Amino acid sequence: MDGDLVNRTQSAELTRLLAEQASAVTYDALPEPVRALARQCVLDYCGVALAGADDPLAHILLDELAEAGGAAQASVIGHNARLPVLSAALINGAIGHALDYDDVNLSMPGHPSVAILPGLLALAEQRQSSGREVIAAFVAGYETACRIGSTLRPGHYNRGFHATGTVGVFGAAAACARLLGLDAEATARALGIAGTQAAGLKSQFGTMCKPFHAGKASQSGLLAARLAARGFSSRPDLVECEQGFALTHGPDFHPEKALADPPHGFHIFANLFKYHAACYLTHGPIESARSVRQQAARERHGIVPEQIADVILRLDRSCAMVCNIPAPTDGLEAKFSLRQTVAMALSGVDTASLAAYSTATATDPALVALRDKVTLDFQDDWPQAAAEIEVALNDGRVLRARHDAGIPCADIAAQGERLAAKFDALAEPALGAARAHELRQVIETLDKLPDAGAIARLAAA
Amino acid sequence: MDGDLVNRTQSAELTRLLAEQASAVTYDALPEPVRALARQCVLDYCGVALAGADDPLAHILLDELAEAGGAAQASVIGHNARLPVLSAALINGAIGHALDYDDVNLSMPGHPSVAILPGLLALAEQRQSSGREVIAAFVAGYETACRIGSTLRPGHYNRGFHATGTVGVFGAAAACARLLGLDAEATARALGIAGTQAAGLKSQFGTMCKPFHAGKASQSGLLAARLAARGFSSRPDLVECEQGFALTHGPDFHPEKALADPPHGFHIFANLFKYHAACYLTHGPIESARSVRQQAARERHGIVPEQIADVILRLDRSCAMVCNIPAPTDGLEAKFSLRQTVAMALSGVDTASLAAYSTATATDPALVALRDKVTLDFQDDWPQAAAEIEVALNDGRVLRARHDAGIPCADIAAQGERLAAKFDALAEPALGAARAHELRQVIETLDKLPDAGAIARLAAA
Repeated sequence: MDGDLVNRTQSAELTRLLAEQASAVTYDALPEPVRALARQCVLDYCGVALAGADDPLAHILLDELAEAGGAAQASVIGHNARLPVLSAALINGAIGHALDYDDVNLSMPGHPSVAILPGLLALAEQRQSSGREVIAAFVAGYETACRIGSTLRPGHYNRGFHATGTVGVFGAAAACARLLGLDAEATARALGIAGTQAAGLKSQFGTMCKPFHAGKASQSGLLAARLAARGFSSRPDLVECEQGFALTHGPDFHPEKALADPPHGFHIFANLFKYHAACYLTHGPIESARSVRQQAARERHGIVPEQIADVILRLDRSCAMVCNIPAPTDGLEAKFSLRQTVAMALSGVDTASLAAYSTATATDPALVALRDKVTLDFQDDWPQAAAEIEVALNDGRVLRARHDAGIPCADIAAQGERLAAKFDALAEPALGAARAHELRQVIETLDKLPDAGAIARLAAA
Repeated sequence: MDGDLVNRTQSAELTRLLAEQASAVTYDALPEPVRALARQCVLDYCGVALAGADDPLAHILLDELAEAGGAAQASVIGHNARLPVLSAALINGAIGHALDYDDVNLSMPGHPSVAILPGLLALAEQRQSSGREVIAAFVAGYETACRIGSTLRPGHYNRGFHATGTVGVFGAAAACARLLGLDAEATARALGIAGTQAAGLKSQFGTMCKPFHAGKASQSGLLAARLAARGFSSRPDLVECEQGFALTHGPDFHPEKALADPPHGFHIFANLFKYHAACYLTHGPIESARSVRQQAARERHGIVPEQIADVILRLDRSCAMVCNIPAPTDGLEAKFSLRQTVAMALSGVDTASLAAYSTATATDPALVALRDKVTLDFQDDWPQAAAEIEVALNDGRVLRARHDAGIPCADIAAQGERLAAKFDALAEPALGAARAHELRQVIETLDKLPDAGAIARLAAA
């Protein structure tokens, strides 16, 4: 897009306005549901990070950064290492995204918590910040990332940028800037230093680089805020300026969308938690496949894969470039395979279970045979996370279902219960039941925590 | 550009072929002029880094990373700190580019040495690699960066990416991969991990973020190689794949240009050293302005600014988006101001002197008055570093000159003498004459050095 085409009135002040908003967030002014959602994001991030802490990539990164060593400023989740905050942010971000089981916001679009919290919690541990300070800083970062992401949709992500990395770095910078107490001027510089480090490509989905992007975003955002605090210079308008972040990183730039208030005033109300350990855009397909199974069970005939003649899955065309590995060969690739995850769900495999994503499952002959019966029918301009499924059986019957995974849960308390169960299932194997329970209680009462470092210390091995 | 438009036959194997080439570079097979140019690049980088080591950004980065601390693996140029290799790479890269006085390659287009050498020399110091190993690794990185950069020209840079960062990271990764002895498969992964970290925006020119990009490129490339060596996974085809680096980062992708051999077989033959401490694209304008002054002196009338009625500067349109700050207010901005540097050169200011780029010079009333008489006349499709100047005097005379700064010096020995003088002028104030001389001798006989760490140790304070 030519810079001249941008509505300059609307864009000229964008970075400054975002910096003013982020630096003005206070705990006291946040509505209680926003605080509750922030606590849920922290809880869910810690759970998925604990479950991801033994992933091979965690060991590679930890080996590398432990060899570098340094001041014992912050804890590594699931390990007993204490490292400089910048190192902890990188490892904990990669760990938190290793299983692709962490939360999502479609305005970003990507994974906000895992880009923001690793750096923020490391900084909070170093500074002995209170739980309330962490909540305010997290919300500042979350809203900044979603506001910036919403200006770039849909072209930025569709072109191939992994917004968790490229947009997440702004969220990490804004959150850390808020925790450091930077004013609007310094926060705008932090956003500029962050944006000129923004990176991450979607073509790396299915490799260790995808979770690495989250860690890098958190590390680079944290570094940006720390350097801004030390007086490092930057343009104050990097998001919107000519040859700036927006105009170099995609065909779309709609600055007015950053300034429009989202429903209920906060993007965090649209946060989506994952209950299947695969790419979020497989959730609609998985849920619709589960509906078909439940429907068949209700009608008392049940369903076995051999009965299925073919499967048509309708979904938004953008999914084709996100999670469409046609013939996955291992568990990580299976997480990014629409056809494989639908075959798993239709076959009754527990897609919430981490163990379900294995080489054995990816190459299971029955699942492969069913997967090969799935036809993807991409639609233009659908809701991005919605899916419709048609399962034709050999006897001529056709079962249909639809699920839109883009609609957030309206009942925050009920969501909290579901997340607590997910957390327990992920954290107990890593920490034991007693410590997992203690960690969950600490996060559920985060507002009263005098030193948020307790979270990181409890989540360490 | 749509991925389908790419000539897939030519592009499908690009990353693999580049990885094969980089991993196969050996010192023994390099022609002596290539080795000589590599030594000149090391010498020039060390000189400009020593002169940049007291820049405010160096102190900010050193404060930040010294606070993090860690294993004493590598030296910081001009300081007495020893830090982990990743930290040293970041600081030394930023220091080396702080003055914008380091070398250039127009195929990249950008600053190859400062993206490659900080990480490579840190790694060599840690591993006690020989001078010959460093030369081979440097050439591997240099050629990789220029080959990748040449596929993206001109759209990548013109859109707003700072290729020193975005393309430099591949050079750093390839060089470090070569020093680590990675095979082609692992080198291709290193290039993938590097490319998914690629970042840096030209709109940050004139701020501390520009040199920061060089440091980040060196650090991220070094990290990519180290992670690849540890088995970190990546796509093996990230440069050319769909949604990969090339197709996300600009409108142009000409993979065949990466595989075409440059004149004399090596891109390093087109390396351009800087003899003015400003953006390389001001060099053609500065040299043409100097020619006009010399011409006036030969004609015995000389020239004083008050005699000048107006100045027309013709140059390639792409310069408008690189170094066209119209009214610089400090020394750093002056380095990116075509009109200011031309005014300085016409007035006889020594543009090779670091002290010439100051707030005082940027705001000097006589220079400002002359600067405001300079009209920029941008041309389409000119040689990027060429400039033509017309200086109209009050008495009606018009003086003309032209200089193409894109033509490398053909006499490598003569270039070495000029670089030795530049090095001495930069290094002696930092190290004292004796140590500066020792460092220059060590680099000039790099091929015989058993432990290249001697360079970094001599360049430390």
